[in-house]
Amino acid sequence: MRTYLDCIPCFVDQALRAGRIATDDEKKLKGILDEVGMMLRDIPLENTPPETGMLIYDKVRKITGVFDPYKKLKRESTEKALALYPSLKSKVEQSNDKLLTAIRIAIAGNVIDFGPNKSFDIEEEIDDVLTKDFAIFDYDEFKDYFGNTNEILYLGDNAGETVFDRILIEELKKPVTYVVRAVPVINDATCEDALQAGINEVATVISSGTSAPGTILKTCNAEFKAAYNKSNFIISKGQGNYEGLSNENRPIFFLLKVKCHVIAQDVGVNVGDIVLKGMNV
Amino acid sequence: MRTYLDCIPCFVDQALRAGRIATDDEKKLKGILDEVGMMLRDIPLENTPPETGMLIYDKVRKITGVFDPYKKLKRESTEKALALYPSLKSKVEQSNDKLLTAIRIAIAGNVIDFGPNKSFDIEEEIDDVLTKDFAIFDYDEFKDYFGNTNEILYLGDNAGETVFDRILIEELKKPVTYVVRAVPVINDATCEDALQAGINEVATVISSGTSAPGTILKTCNAEFKAAYNKSNFIISKGQGNYEGLSNENRPIFFLLKVKCHVIAQDVGVNVGDIVLKGMNV
Repeated sequence: MRTYLDCIPCFVDQALRAGRIATDDEKKLKGILDEVGMMLRDIPLENTPPETGMLIYDKVRKITGVFDPYKKLKRESTEKALALYPSLKSKVEQSNDKLLTAIRIAIAGNVIDFGPNKSFDIEEEIDDVLTKDFAIFDYDEFKDYFGNTNEILYLGDNAGETVFDRILIEELKKPVTYVVRAVPVINDATCEDALQAGINEVATVISSGTSAPGTILKTCNAEFKAAYNKSNFIISKGQGNYEGLSNENRPIFFLLKVKCHVIAQDVGVNVGDIVLKGMNV
Repeated sequence: MRTYLDCIPCFVDQALRAGRIATDDEKKLKGILDEVGMMLRDIPLENTPPETGMLIYDKVRKITGVFDPYKKLKRESTEKALALYPSLKSKVEQSNDKLLTAIRIAIAGNVIDFGPNKSFDIEEEIDDVLTKDFAIFDYDEFKDYFGNTNEILYLGDNAGETVFDRILIEELKKPVTYVVRAVPVINDATCEDALQAGINEVATVISSGTSAPGTILKTCNAEFKAAYNKSNFIISKGQGNYEGLSNENRPIFFLLKVKCHVIAQDVGVNVGDIVLKGMNV
């Protein structure tokens, strides 16, 4: 997905919010805003938003000296999600369509996102996503592709959401490779966050090699690119991965909760909608 | 009022919104964002926000070539307000405290503001402001000062709101000097907008000389400064005038609807609150 004009004020806003997680030093925060301001003219609208996100969060790290501002929040999100794990599992067990319920739960977890979100209530979110209609619902195609694959490439998004992903992975009952970011960016899941969620017990965890808050192929490592290029069934979680991959040509199923009006417009749905969208399928 | 860090993403957002009112040329809009981005490092947090607003809206004018982007919106706001004028007058006539009702109506009109607001419903606003409690209510001081003055300096804010101001001016029944901006900025009222609202029939209209979306004394002309310095009773409408004057030492009554959390924090109230705040009284 290209960068829209509306992404630009949002970049500035996100820089301030991320900076504030790292420091309360007003001079440093002003310094972040000044530097991000000067970066704006170098952002081509043809780039995907996570490419810019990568530069912005790198600036936040450099100016504040805090490598992983969201570390504590990520840990807390995962702990909270792990506490919900038994009840999420029983929701799947009690449902008529276990796979679909697990997909819904994985999407509910996508609300744990400190990029576009200022606040969220995960318990409310679960109840909402378990019952609401999908704005795009390519479930038949999902089942077709799933039936014909022996392994799944699963692109993770946020820490805490990882636990919700685990529920879906356990329901897939096929070998899964779970992909995390190489470097902490916003609250996106890294290897450490995936381990805390126990993903390593149900999937092979690999890093995409990127420090972008999304899957930007040109920033990814060879291991990930090889896995990506040979996969016939890719599950992509969240907005950042959608932004990075929406113009690519592999068969991908995007599972996401739409959290900003720019993505809503690009996908062709409304803010708050849930989406199971198959691309190139 | 100083510039807070949260004002900075808002400046970028406002630049984009104002640009879009003037043009749909994406290159020009990106150009505005690029230039505003580069300005950020030159914004001292000690400055008041309207000082920066002045530079930003000037940039929008220069890049788009549109001198008064909000001209049509301002005209429509005033027309809509004029259509409400008879019913507003009868609300004052039927009330037990006509002065207070006229003050409430003047505050309701303050919602017609395309700076911080993305949308508003003026009719809903009137009903709300006529009945809700004030978060700050220095009405006794207002009446004391009003009783001891022979003339009033009234600092206008937005076009359309001017009609609501007229209702209050008519209720004051003392000579009023009504102050407008010298140059169109956002939808702030200029002389032309005041005339369209008929303010010239009930007050002497003068320009402050500023092109800022607020009263920044150092950018004002000699005529206004003379009137300001000798006045013992100043009514100041809206956020922009508050931002410019909140650290000055004249007796001023601020009438406003609080529309952003930065102002709310500075005033010590909540977003959505209505305020009648006397300063240096």
